Amino acid sequence: MTVNHQFRKLENNYLFSDVAKRIRAFQAAHPDMPLRKCSIGDVTRPLPRIIADELKSAAEEMAHAETFRGYGAEQGEVFLRDAIAAYYQKRGIAVDAGDIFISDGAKSDLGDLCDLFAADNTVLLPNPVYPVYYDTSIMSGRRVEFLAGTRENGFLPMPDVNQKADIIYLCSPNNPTGAVYSREQLQTWVNYALEQKAVLLFDAAYESYIRDEALPHSIFEIPGAERCAIEINSLSKMAGFTGVRCGWTVVPSTLVLDGASLHDMWLRRMSTKYNGTSYIIQKAAAKVFTDEGQAAVHEDIAYYMENARILKAALTKAGIWSTGGDNAPYVWLQAPNGLGSWEFFDELLNTYGIAGTPGAGFGTAGEGYLRFSSFGTRETITAAAAVLETL
Amino acid sequence: MTVNHQFRKLENNYLFSDVAKRIRAFQAAHPDMPLRKCSIGDVTRPLPRIIADELKSAAEEMAHAETFRGYGAEQGEVFLRDAIAAYYQKRGIAVDAGDIFISDGAKSDLGDLCDLFAADNTVLLPNPVYPVYYDTSIMSGRRVEFLAGTRENGFLPMPDVNQKADIIYLCSPNNPTGAVYSREQLQTWVNYALEQKAVLLFDAAYESYIRDEALPHSIFEIPGAERCAIEINSLSKMAGFTGVRCGWTVVPSTLVLDGASLHDMWLRRMSTKYNGTSYIIQKAAAKVFTDEGQAAVHEDIAYYMENARILKAALTKAGIWSTGGDNAPYVWLQAPNGLGSWEFFDELLNTYGIAGTPGAGFGTAGEGYLRFSSFGTRETITAAAAVLETL
Repeated sequence: MTVNHQFRKLENNYLFSDVAKRIRAFQAAHPDMPLRKCSIGDVTRPLPRIIADELKSAAEEMAHAETFRGYGAEQGEVFLRDAIAAYYQKRGIAVDAGDIFISDGAKSDLGDLCDLFAADNTVLLPNPVYPVYYDTSIMSGRRVEFLAGTRENGFLPMPDVNQKADIIYLCSPNNPTGAVYSREQLQTWVNYALEQKAVLLFDAAYESYIRDEALPHSIFEIPGAERCAIEINSLSKMAGFTGVRCGWTVVPSTLVLDGASLHDMWLRRMSTKYNGTSYIIQKAAAKVFTDEGQAAVHEDIAYYMENARILKAALTKAGIWSTGGDNAPYVWLQAPNGLGSWEFFDELLNTYGIAGTPGAGFGTAGEGYLRFSSFGTRETITAAAAVLETL
Repeated sequence: MTVNHQFRKLENNYLFSDVAKRIRAFQAAHPDMPLRKCSIGDVTRPLPRIIADELKSAAEEMAHAETFRGYGAEQGEVFLRDAIAAYYQKRGIAVDAGDIFISDGAKSDLGDLCDLFAADNTVLLPNPVYPVYYDTSIMSGRRVEFLAGTRENGFLPMPDVNQKADIIYLCSPNNPTGAVYSREQLQTWVNYALEQKAVLLFDAAYESYIRDEALPHSIFEIPGAERCAIEINSLSKMAGFTGVRCGWTVVPSTLVLDGASLHDMWLRRMSTKYNGTSYIIQKAAAKVFTDEGQAAVHEDIAYYMENARILKAALTKAGIWSTGGDNAPYVWLQAPNGLGSWEFFDELLNTYGIAGTPGAGFGTAGEGYLRFSSFGTRETITAAAAVLETL
């Protein structure tokens, strides 16, 4: 048997374990010094009461023969797909419930979508970006090319018409930079994808953090996207579902590339290698899209965005350049005095007890930057901000 | 962009939709005639009270800041991996908790394991068998060879030392035939895999239905398996989790093939393309492995096995040859008078209102056979048996 030797080409991504290791060392060396953790990309607010109650009520259904549910549809329950289609519709975005596929989260779908494409494809990635796009592309044996996000382009790289691309990943709002593409910029990307006959994989996992009315939440707000794009989304950050697990992917039935319906291929892939998302979780997910549910989750989103505002204000006072945090839960800051990502990380941690995430971990173009997450508790964030102001 | 053209080689597997279509036509034509559905491979008993209560209590934990859980370990929670290791240990099987990976079900893992192997491998499949092994192998661009299960070999095909194999799938107890390999037979398979330097993917999803003390429940009862085998299991049929979704896979750290640790590769794969199984569901899954939980789920298993006994007794009275149903929830019967699978399916459905699943849908060697599932309600099963007896 021959293994998939592409795995050997993967660099070991030690980013988060390295961060954790250095934090442990700091805590051992300074047992009395408080730690202000702004590194973690995970939510901290508990589930809203109505969502937890819906989980419990669905669990109770499973204990009675008349309401017990066995295997669900591999594509997801109609009640949830309808709720998500209505969520798009509220913003005037036409997404057919039949084109929505429920999953256990965006990370699974982002990886599993690789099954639909041949190995011999060129992947185009923004840099810095969520490392999963790169790792799954390498595992699948593909060539990867990068477009650098810089202070000059607002960390929103645009395509070069002379550059060939088959598979394009975009993340907007971006993790880690918090940058959000405008409608015009996404139109340029869609036009480029159509011209290249490329598929555009649009990761919209942070769209619910957008507050600027002019910014697009979905690639399907852009004419032509229905012929080149797949959108991946998740309830992880929208509704605190990081430990609950639910996401969705939209593959339009109008998306035909290389003579194949990607919608039909994805349906075949999910019917063969997935067995549906837990009924209990789909029930709770549907509750998120009710008016009550949206009101509850937007309270938490507002809480995290206030955290982001507090962090940014402190950085401004300290004279540290930052971006993001306005329409995204991530604040992206430049290390002062030309320090490298890890140098500034170490200084912040060991001198001030503040943990960020080194930007270099998200790609070469992240060198010299740090990511702050606003998902901490208010207590942590204000404590961190009080120290940052004095830098 | 070039799609994965292997998808075009997939036959459209219309088995279950064809069965459903013919059932609908029967019901439309005979609105007053009762339907006895023995076709469905899905459980019907509700979740045991203590499992549903555990789901609810974990959901409540998520509603409080002090007990809220975000992202879990991609490999699964330690409390559940320990519970599963102890479950093996009770039978004297040494499986390390560090080698257990929690997933949302066996179907996902069976498909996702394909990521670890190169396309250029020969897959060896028993026939008839669960169609997912074939479909995922074809999707991954692999050659597939078959070994036929027959009445003569008890639907337990054995390897031919002259046949090359890189990846071997075994399902024991088998879906659809209900046949279970003996310890000696599995030793022969393990020896063959070791000699071929092949990996043996052992699907043990029905092991909790084994009642014969002499029959092995796990490939890891067989010396040498720790150097060639991966085991996939699930709570779907063991604990009625088909709609709840939880399974696990054991990849021993001793499993090194083609110079690579498959354990490390699987960890990398799951860390990159999976984000952990829902905390709520892992809590309920751990409850299944307590003494109380095992007592509860074994009541349901006994219920289904009594269904299987009733079906087999009726077939015997009718003079129809059958196998399985003793250590598996499936009864495998031969169509009388040389009828084909679909011919006998149509006759049973249209004349007697009994629905089975045509054996031909599980592979060419299933032609002339039908699968009955014992997962129906007692009411359905006794009604079907009363009619079958008179055939």
